[in-house]
Amino acid sequence: MNYTAIFETAVDALRREKRYRVFADIERIAGRFPHALWHAPDGPREIVVWCSNDYLGMGQHPASIAAMVEAAQQLGVGAGGTRNISGNSHQVVMLEHELADLHGKPAALVFTSGYVSNQTGISTIGRLLPDGLILSDQLNHNSMIEGVRQSGCEKAIFRHNDLDHLEDLLRKAGKERPKLIAFESVYSMDGDIAPIGRICDLAERYNAMTYLDEVHAVGMYGARGGGIAERDGEMGRVDVIEGTLAKAFGTLGGYIAANAPIIDAVRSHAPGFIFTSALPPAVAAAAQASVRHLKVSQSERAAQQANAARTKAALADAGLPVTISETHIVPVTVGDAERCKAASDLLLAEHGIYIQPINYPTVPRGTERLRITPTPFHDEALIAELTRALVAVWRKLDLPFRLRAAAE
Amino acid sequence: MNYTAIFETAVDALRREKRYRVFADIERIAGRFPHALWHAPDGPREIVVWCSNDYLGMGQHPASIAAMVEAAQQLGVGAGGTRNISGNSHQVVMLEHELADLHGKPAALVFTSGYVSNQTGISTIGRLLPDGLILSDQLNHNSMIEGVRQSGCEKAIFRHNDLDHLEDLLRKAGKERPKLIAFESVYSMDGDIAPIGRICDLAERYNAMTYLDEVHAVGMYGARGGGIAERDGEMGRVDVIEGTLAKAFGTLGGYIAANAPIIDAVRSHAPGFIFTSALPPAVAAAAQASVRHLKVSQSERAAQQANAARTKAALADAGLPVTISETHIVPVTVGDAERCKAASDLLLAEHGIYIQPINYPTVPRGTERLRITPTPFHDEALIAELTRALVAVWRKLDLPFRLRAAAE
Repeated sequence: MNYTAIFETAVDALRREKRYRVFADIERIAGRFPHALWHAPDGPREIVVWCSNDYLGMGQHPASIAAMVEAAQQLGVGAGGTRNISGNSHQVVMLEHELADLHGKPAALVFTSGYVSNQTGISTIGRLLPDGLILSDQLNHNSMIEGVRQSGCEKAIFRHNDLDHLEDLLRKAGKERPKLIAFESVYSMDGDIAPIGRICDLAERYNAMTYLDEVHAVGMYGARGGGIAERDGEMGRVDVIEGTLAKAFGTLGGYIAANAPIIDAVRSHAPGFIFTSALPPAVAAAAQASVRHLKVSQSERAAQQANAARTKAALADAGLPVTISETHIVPVTVGDAERCKAASDLLLAEHGIYIQPINYPTVPRGTERLRITPTPFHDEALIAELTRALVAVWRKLDLPFRLRAAAE
Repeated sequence: MNYTAIFETAVDALRREKRYRVFADIERIAGRFPHALWHAPDGPREIVVWCSNDYLGMGQHPASIAAMVEAAQQLGVGAGGTRNISGNSHQVVMLEHELADLHGKPAALVFTSGYVSNQTGISTIGRLLPDGLILSDQLNHNSMIEGVRQSGCEKAIFRHNDLDHLEDLLRKAGKERPKLIAFESVYSMDGDIAPIGRICDLAERYNAMTYLDEVHAVGMYGARGGGIAERDGEMGRVDVIEGTLAKAFGTLGGYIAANAPIIDAVRSHAPGFIFTSALPPAVAAAAQASVRHLKVSQSERAAQQANAARTKAALADAGLPVTISETHIVPVTVGDAERCKAASDLLLAEHGIYIQPINYPTVPRGTERLRITPTPFHDEALIAELTRALVAVWRKLDLPFRLRAAAE
């Protein structure tokens, strides 16, 4: 038995498929986002990040930084325990009130990450439903899939955003069986949006619970940043809203918001919540500052939408194969793992532009892409620079342009 | 179908068993640890925390606070993405080098929590072993149990620290079958220690891999804080060492250290690592500062051991049913969930001393306890205060003293 060989083989398979991941070593620069320092093999170089999930740049917002600094100085750098055993800081309690209010729910529960909130939130709710059935959108995030799997419930996958298929499955299950519909609002790789209201219609008709992942929408949609459900006026109809503090809110952690009995049951029964150290008060304070700011400020949301629209238009005008999504996410298709990686490498090395390649299993094979996320700080000059760089890379690698460009 | 009633019932069961958890709302005070502010129902009061897992008080160490503050000001409050997609900060990379060096391993991998590092570390290693068998100590932490369960491997539980039983199971499995022995160094609820060297002997004899959880030992044992395996001179024989940044290192996060092929395989195949946002650089910087400090400073370790010994002696002298553990952990048995909670409530309300009750499922029923964790900052005056308070509570609740006190 050669254990080392087993692990080497497991990695070699990824290399052969050209989807071995190399992490770019990045140093962010507060106040100059999206500019950052790349620790390249031949020394540090300044680059522009175009693939951050710090969608609104709140990771460098003065109010969030001040909140973290102040909390670190007054309270220290850690929680010191699990929520139950000495780690329940006042800052996390206040953050939960802030988040419950954001979603118009009576209660909220903070986890150490969005991943954990889905994994342990869904699995715990599922385990508490007697003979529960989970109806799960086909494109749900890995954290939701793991949550469904770990719930031990029977699952039924419905075709992505397909209301007829969902209704078939609900009808088959019958009104009496406990059912949970698990879905996202913004699907992060294509940037498309779920029909939340119509899913809630079905849930009400067939007496199912709804669990909505809004991680790519909180902070960015709705008048107070409550997400797509707030924008659509459907927040009150969704039973459980899950969100993250690590994207538009710029920090770390995840949460669910719901009625008090659901939150209390998850709080009391979820191993991935009970047996883990709490978020440091300094992180909770920074997150709360971001959430509060985005409840009242519209400028970040407006600038992000404007820059996303500008980016889509500029790339489309240049004949690049951009998907015109409904949201802030701008996917540009390559369709091949190796060439996607090559495009990303060229952008970084020759143009100082950082866009990570997105390969299988994050997206289906054949749909490998560059996923671009314009923020309020990606201005017209940066968009023009990005467009020129992408066109140069597309030409160098002989990647397909759309018809219009091909006809030039 | 009344969903709310399902969740209410799930919580009512805990209330009936007297193990419904109420989180004390605490505000830490940097520079004055273990003193803290308790947000009591009738207003804030100052208390002394005696149950923190910030074992060495590094959560308030000036070097760690300065590192977090500086990183937050220079780099902001979040990572901005997963490790693969723009979230791989230079601070996390440097932290991994620091941790690999701490354990004398070629590589290390940081996760968002110790819980996740066990859950996703063990499950990923297990899934990569063809027909793998995991041999798991009976008292392993919930995060390890979940990792074993999610690995899909066959598992064999060996009686706690029982080398004969472990050898039986290894012999039955045979030399050829891939095997992983998963165990802890310090078991946190009793404070006892595993025979690491003899477990490694067995692993070598039967060609098994070893996975050692050192979360309650890193920073506190060994000349550089490498844990019990360092203290015992066995670090080089353990294949995977898992640790946390949220206890003695005072911040947040977890990690594994091992040879490069194992780390690369987990990095490349673990969903709970790949699909989650990275630790903020400010958290990584604070953690690195703590690890570096504890590699050279012996004073925290010496003071902790001295205060733990003093506390055990003082409680034993007072006739309290304290377990004289080999480590810094000081368990005082109550043996009943309701009275354990009552003791904890009285300590907090009447004596300003915070020790969370430890009930089932964290410990077996009938062994409910107060788990006391003296730190370098719990001096003789605080120990005397604690002893007086415990004796008063024991008398008020008519809890059993040891023979010596009963004979007084």
